Amino acid sequence: MEKSRLEQQFDFFREIDKEKFIGRQTYLTDAQRKENDAEHAWHMAIMTILLSEYANEQIDVLKTVTMLLIHDLVEIDAGDTYAYDVEGNQTKRQREVAAADRIFGLLPEDQGEKMRALWDEFEAWETPEARFAHTMDCIQPLMLNAATDGKSWVEHGVHLSQVLGRNQNTASGSKTLWEHAYNDFIAPNVEKGRLKND
Amino acid sequence: MEKSRLEQQFDFFREIDKEKFIGRQTYLTDAQRKENDAEHAWHMAIMTILLSEYANEQIDVLKTVTMLLIHDLVEIDAGDTYAYDVEGNQTKRQREVAAADRIFGLLPEDQGEKMRALWDEFEAWETPEARFAHTMDCIQPLMLNAATDGKSWVEHGVHLSQVLGRNQNTASGSKTLWEHAYNDFIAPNVEKGRLKND
Repeated sequence: MEKSRLEQQFDFFREIDKEKFIGRQTYLTDAQRKENDAEHAWHMAIMTILLSEYANEQIDVLKTVTMLLIHDLVEIDAGDTYAYDVEGNQTKRQREVAAADRIFGLLPEDQGEKMRALWDEFEAWETPEARFAHTMDCIQPLMLNAATDGKSWVEHGVHLSQVLGRNQNTASGSKTLWEHAYNDFIAPNVEKGRLKND
Repeated sequence: MEKSRLEQQFDFFREIDKEKFIGRQTYLTDAQRKENDAEHAWHMAIMTILLSEYANEQIDVLKTVTMLLIHDLVEIDAGDTYAYDVEGNQTKRQREVAAADRIFGLLPEDQGEKMRALWDEFEAWETPEARFAHTMDCIQPLMLNAATDGKSWVEHGVHLSQVLGRNQNTASGSKTLWEHAYNDFIAPNVEKGRLKND
């Protein structure tokens, strides 16, 4: 028997519950537990709503929020790839595309296509919304790393050049927010030796 | 020295990180770990985007999503009050209002007032958006309870009358979704004795 539209939608909602089990490398502000993807997305959605005033270009806030809420669902199958994991990042794209096919494919066709298009748009980094979403995706962990005295950076022996490389396009979504992140989250931790100055 | 607008905003973002530590009574789909408030909000935000088509009245989706993303922040101070905890529910309102004053008060005044107004609107349950948000807030844990064979209901010895009491206004946001929840999440668990039929 074919599934009803509502059954397909709730199949998707039950499946995405698994995003709550996908761990990231960033410590929460208690510096004890690490964040998971669902918590990360929730945090960035609120940040987007309150920080859209600093976007370089006008953004559609609901579209950007939706993009951020769903952009890590592919990690349910593909796992979280740490920003500074060279090997993992080589196979990341292939693993994530297969995941997108499966997971967005659970939804009714019209909604699956819309969500998939939003994920593709995020990945392509070419629209104002995608640029701003990436700015959030980069700045939120910088904020948490700074709030925990760079704990994750120290544990992984991260160099300033890696952080700057990772953030080479962060300003394209918001110059103001990138400057704030550099001055408040990065620079003080270089000064204190928690990020290796190379 | 007075804080800048950006400093106030990031103070708020660091503070709300604590929502990730506020535990709820609902088990995740693995039936092992319980959900926290941030995960719950993330899940409902996506559900709202994909289920708004079933709202009884037209809703502003961004407004409803924002309401859901922020509606549990008060629990950072006030804690989560279990739906069927009679004593806790008597002091809940007072504890939550004090929390709203403090937490939304961290934001720049204009944004603090907007978020506070949204929280008040959610609490008042009088607009289409608030009604739909409450429908989400009731249906999401019903879905997870059903997905875990009613584990939380069984542990707390919950009666059907309590669930129906708690959900007396759920249909006011969406009759279609309430019917789906009743038929797919509640009724089968009454049949199997996981919810006590009284």
